[in-house]
Order: sequence, then C-alpha cells, then structure tokens
Amino acid sequence: MDTRRVEAFSDGVYAIAITLLVLTFDVPEGRASLSHALIHQWPSYVAYVVSFLTVGIMWTNHHTVMQQIGRVDRTFLLVTVVNLMFVAFVPYPTRVVAKFINTDERRAAALFYGITFTCTALSWALLWFYAALGNRLIAADANPRVVSGITRSFLPGTLLYGGATLVALASATASVVLFGLIAVFYALESAIFGRE
Amino acid sequence: MDTRRVEAFSDGVYAIAITLLVLTFDVPEGRASLSHALIHQWPSYVAYVVSFLTVGIMWTNHHTVMQQIGRVDRTFLLVTVVNLMFVAFVPYPTRVVAKFINTDERRAAALFYGITFTCTALSWALLWFYAALGNRLIAADANPRVVSGITRSFLPGTLLYGGATLVALASATASVVLFGLIAVFYALESAIFGRE
Amino acid sequence: MDTRRVEAFSDGVYAIAITLLVLTFDVPEGRASLSHALIHQWPSYVAYVVSFLTVGIMWTNHHTVMQQIGRVDRTFLLVTVVNLMFVAFVPYPTRVVAKFINTDERRAAALFYGITFTCTALSWALLWFYAALGNRLIAADANPRVVSGITRSFLPGTLLYGGATLVALASATASVVLFGLIAVFYALESAIFGRE
Amino acid sequence: MDTRRVEAFSDGVYAIAITLLVLTFDVPEGRASLSHALIHQWPSYVAYVVSFLTVGIMWTNHHTVMQQIGRVDRTFLLVTVVNLMFVAFVPYPTRVVAKFINTDERRAAALFYGITFTCTALSWALLWFYAALGNRLIAADANPRVVSGITRSFLPGTLLYGGATLVALASATASVVLFGLIAVFYALESAIFGRE
Repeated sequence: MDTRRVEAFSDGVYAIAITLLVLTFDVPEGRASLSHALIHQWPSYVAYVVSFLTVGIMWTNHHTVMQQIGRVDRTFLLVTVVNLMFVAFVPYPTRVVAKFINTDERRAAALFYGITFTCTALSWALLWFYAALGNRLIAADANPRVVSGITRSFLPGTLLYGGATLVALASATASVVLFGLIAVFYALESAIFGRE
Repeated sequence: MDTRRVEAFSDGVYAIAITLLVLTFDVPEGRASLSHALIHQWPSYVAYVVSFLTVGIMWTNHHTVMQQIGRVDRTFLLVTVVNLMFVAFVPYPTRVVAKFINTDERRAAALFYGITFTCTALSWALLWFYAALGNRLIAADANPRVVSGITRSFLPGTLLYGGATLVALASATASVVLFGLIAVFYALESAIFGRE
Repeated sequence: MDTRRVEAFSDGVYAIAITLLVLTFDVPEGRASLSHALIHQWPSYVAYVVSFLTVGIMWTNHHTVMQQIGRVDRTFLLVTVVNLMFVAFVPYPTRVVAKFINTDERRAAALFYGITFTCTALSWALLWFYAALGNRLIAADANPRVVSGITRSFLPGTLLYGGATLVALASATASVVLFGLIAVFYALESAIFGRE
Repeated sequence: MDTRRVEAFSDGVYAIAITLLVLTFDVPEGRASLSHALIHQWPSYVAYVVSFLTVGIMWTNHHTVMQQIGRVDRTFLLVTVVNLMFVAFVPYPTRVVAKFINTDERRAAALFYGITFTCTALSWALLWFYAALGNRLIAADANPRVVSGITRSFLPGTLLYGGATLVALASATASVVLFGLIAVFYALESAIFGRE
C-alpha cells in the first residue's frame, strides 16, 4: 500500500472526528431563558474550541510526518489504526469535559481529557519512531533536517501533553486552557519541525 | 503543504457538516397523529433547508477562493482551522433554531443562528484578507479580476449576514428566511466574484 | 469549477448519508429479553436495507450521469446542492419508517418515506434535464447512446418512485418493500442506461 | 466505472463507520463519582477497540483485494453495496455489546456482534469469489500469487469469524476478546495474502 492512501484514509478520519465534535452540544431543555442557557453552556464552547484546534493541528502535522515516509509496512498500518483510534475517540472526552468542567467532578473530567490527548501523543511518537528508527520507512528523498526536527520535537511534545494533564490535579480549567495554548503554539511555531 | 490538500480536508469537513444537518430532525414521540407531527415540524425543515443552502454555497465559493491561492503558510492553516470550526458548528444553531423558532424564545434562537453565520463570514474575510493583502499567498497565475472581485464582495457579504442577524430583533422568522434568500442570491449571482 | 470536484463532494455526501443510516437503530432499553428485542426490531433492518440499497444505487448512477457532463455552471451547482439536500435527508424518513411501520401510523410513515424518494428522483431529473437540454453542459466526448438512455430512463424512474409511494395508501409494508425491489432492479438492469 | 472510484467510495464508508464508533460511549449520568463511572464503562472501551481494529484491518485488506481487480460490473457494484451495508452497520452491534456484555444478556449481545462480523466476512468472500472465479474481473497485471493467497485465506477467515461467534455460547467476553485477537493476527500476518 502506498503512503498516499494511508494519508487519505487518515485525513478522512481526522475530518470526521473533528466535525463530530459538534455533538458536544446538547440543545437546552430546561425552563431557563434560552439566551441564559446558551451562555451557561460556556464549558461546551471551550471544550469544542480546544479539541477542534488540537485535532486540527494534529492533522496539519500528520501531513508533515507522512511526507517524510516513503513506504508503509503492516506494522506501520497497525500503529496507524491505533493512532486513529485515539483521534476518533476525542469527541467523547470532549463531551465529558464539557458536561463536568463546571461541576464538582471537574478534576476527573479534565484528567480523562488530558489522558486521551497524552495517549494520542504517545501513539504519534510510536508511529514516528517505528518509521524513523534506522530510517526504516523514511523516503529516500526525505529532508534530513525535517526528519531530525520531527524526532527532536516528539519528546517535549509528549511531555507537554503529560504535564498539561497533571495540571488538572491543581486546576481543571487551567489544564483545559493549557491544551488550547499548546495547540496554538504548535500551529504557529513552524520552527519546531525544522521548517522556516 | 500544498493548497490541494487543504482544499480536500476542507471539502471533507463541509461535506460532513452539511450531512450532519439531518440530526436537526427528531423522530416524533408524542401521541398526536404522525402526519400532524411531521407537518408540525416545519421549523426543522426551514432550518435544514436554509443551513444546507448556506453551507453548500460556502463550499462552492471556497473553491473559487482556493483557486486564487498559490501556497499556504502556518498562519493560513490556523485561520483555515478556525474557519472550519465555525462551519462544523452550524448543525448546532440549526437545531436550536428548529426547536425554538416556534416558541417564545424565537428571538434568542434566531440571534444565535445569525451570530454563527456572521462569525463564519468574518472568519472567511479573515482568511481571504490574510492571503490577499500584498498578494501574500496569491498564485502567480491568479486572475486579477477574480481576486479583486472576491475582495470587493467580502465587505458587503459580512454586512449582509450581520444585517440579517439584526433583523431577528424585529422578526426571528424573517431573519431565518433572509439567510435562505442570501444563499440563493450568492448561488446565482455569479457576477459577485467577477466571473461571467 | 470542474466536474471532478462536484463529483468528489457529492460522493462524500452520499458516503456520509449512507453511513449515518446506522442511526436508524436504537439500542433496546425495555425489560424484554435482548434476543427478543433485537428480533422485534425487524422494521429497522428492513428500512436500513432499503435505504442503503437506494442511496447506494443512486451513488452508482450519479457517476454514470456525471461522466456525460463536461462542465458545470452556477445554476447546476445550486441544483446539485438541492439534490444532495434530499440525499442527506434520507436517514430521517428511514428512522420514521423504522419506528412506525409496525404501528397504526404505518401509512403516514411510508408516505413520508416515499415522498422523500420521489422528491429525490425529481431533483435528479431536474439536474439531468438542466444539463442535457440543448446539450447545455454535456461533454463533447459524451456517448450519445448513454445520454439518450439516461434521458429515456428518468421519466419512468420518477413514475416508479411516485407509484411505489402511492402503494403506501393500500399497504405501507408493500410500499417499503417495493422501494427495495426498485433499487435491486436499477442495480442489475444495466440496459436502462444504454450500457451493456 | 473504474475501480479507483469504487475504492474511494468504500474508503469513505470505512472511515465514517470507524469514526462513528465513538457513539458507543454515552456520557455518564448517574450519581456515582465520575472517575468510577468512567472506569465502570470498560465494556465500551473493549467494544470500541475490538470494532475499531476489525474495521481498520478490513480497510487494509480491502485495498489488497481491490488492487487485484481490473474492472467492475454492475453485479460487483451491488455486492460492494451489500458489503458496505454490513461495514456501516458495525457501530450498532458495538453499542449493543458495550451495553450488555456486563449484564445477564451478555450472550445474546455477543452473538449479535459475532453474527454481524460473520456476515461481513461472508459478504467479503462473496465479493472476492464473484470477481475471482474464472478471473472474471481480475486485472491483467494482477499478481497470481496474491490472487491465490487471497482465495486461500477467505475460507479459514470466514470459519474463524463463525467460530469466534459460537464461542459466545460458552463465554461472551471470550468471544469479543477473540475478535480483537483475530484482528491483530490479520494485521500482522502479512503472509496470509501471499505478500512478504
């Protein structure tokens, strides 16, 4: 199987998972005024924005990674399926965090949210190091600067996600906001991947 | 990243968001006759049609815009993700307007609906002006007439959406119908974008 | 806009709408035994199969139609959006028919289902005749036998759907089954479109 | 219709069905602590992982199969639609098994889950043997070793699924776990399809 088809399938899962985030929102039912209820839903908006940015940035970086990979083998396909399993899962912890971030259960909700992102980052690292170790699947025409840039960025990336998860023990809201900031940082900091 | 892949991903999000609009409809539960209940759902049909046309027309124009763009940078990708965030959100205000347009809360529902479309239009303008200012990302072979046509059309476009939103203060139903008319107008008025 | 992109977007909507048909099924809640409840859901299985076959066959024929079309204009795009609006709507009447075909309200449910398919067929005919009249959008290298075959097949096609809808006045179940038979007939009867 | 478009449409349905598996999860409602409720949802995680791996591996193998096929006819298209009908159905038995595997109804749930996969495997075999018998649709440049490898693998594949389904009569959990093991086995055992 060539890498284009793996990328097309992954793009499909990313696009669907990101669009299913709209299921985070439940139409208000109660007897409060609608405008009040829509404003009172602010945790859903925050969770939607943070998850959307995070999955969107992962999609962006997925392409940078796949461009360095020249061929795929069966183990790589299995790791890709595991990686997509975490990406496709994101809408669920997003709903959990939207529902509970404003309640007594905020800490468990934010931890669950952060653990999901950390596992996703770990599956990303697994994907990359399987492909890059000994140049196992790296394309002959790959840019060595980009390859080593990606390798250098994965360790701090996973630590960043793990750290933001642990912040939830002190403040659930800070943890969620931190994930949003990480996404924006990754979006703009092109130097991370050795590109200019 | 080349522009084709951005367009393919965006197309995916548009196609999924537009198809998820079917979630606007809840199967009737009550003890009224089914035919009566299905007719009584007219606000859902109106909201479905207006949102479908609006997202469909945005998809059409998205292509016209992307054809003028020759390359993308990281800021453009981030703005694209923000733009898709609003497009993917549309099914939620559509459900809200379908549920409340026939109740006392119609004004808040229509305002929420209109604000979503106005923000979407603003993110469109942001996307375009970031790419077009100083020809930052415009393709070398772009048609100058189309480029200036798009630029000319964005200001009135955003004002039109903002105006239709404010109409909700006087009449919620008129506001929703107006969004439908704007979509049909944009669909047919090819001259807007300087094409003939 | 070239026809390939219209076809890709349409394919996306077809694929999503057909996959959302799984939302026809609600996990049993009651206190009856699960095996009994799963069997008792037979109307959902029937509705799922009939809608899946119908949308699947429409997707197949969509390609045959698009291959004859050489260019698109703005009116054609608007008619395409209207056509997709009906295709994307199909999961809703499918849920309605699944819930009510086994109740006193079966007739209204089957009529609603049939009217949806008839409107979809009409929007198909509109799409085709707009493109084909005076060869407005027909490709220079289109096969005249296929073009006239498609034209010849649309009138009986719409009548067939309308007729199957009216059958619901006599028997709702017969009407639904008839739609399934029409889909299989269209799938296998390649001669309809003048191909061998 | 060429095989690329059939493959693109099938890929779309696979990607959507696999991403809709996230609907397996319902946000906890009860008054138990959230962390306890999230852990108590383990049947949902198991069902999600097993279904995700199974559909992911089917997607992988789908490509291997389609590469050997040189052209499609109308019967093949109909069989493809039937095959996709089972793939798109998977999220429903996944929800059923997630809800009931931890209750008295576990056996019926696991049987329903297994029967779905067995029918999917049967529709796969039907697809393949229709194409391969007498080389009806096999590409001129297909690799005979791969073709006979696929043919050899389908019989044990279907038996494997059928057997794992029957295991549910003795132990529902063992049956579900077995499906996960089959997926991993198929993912890694590249020799099955005669590739090295």
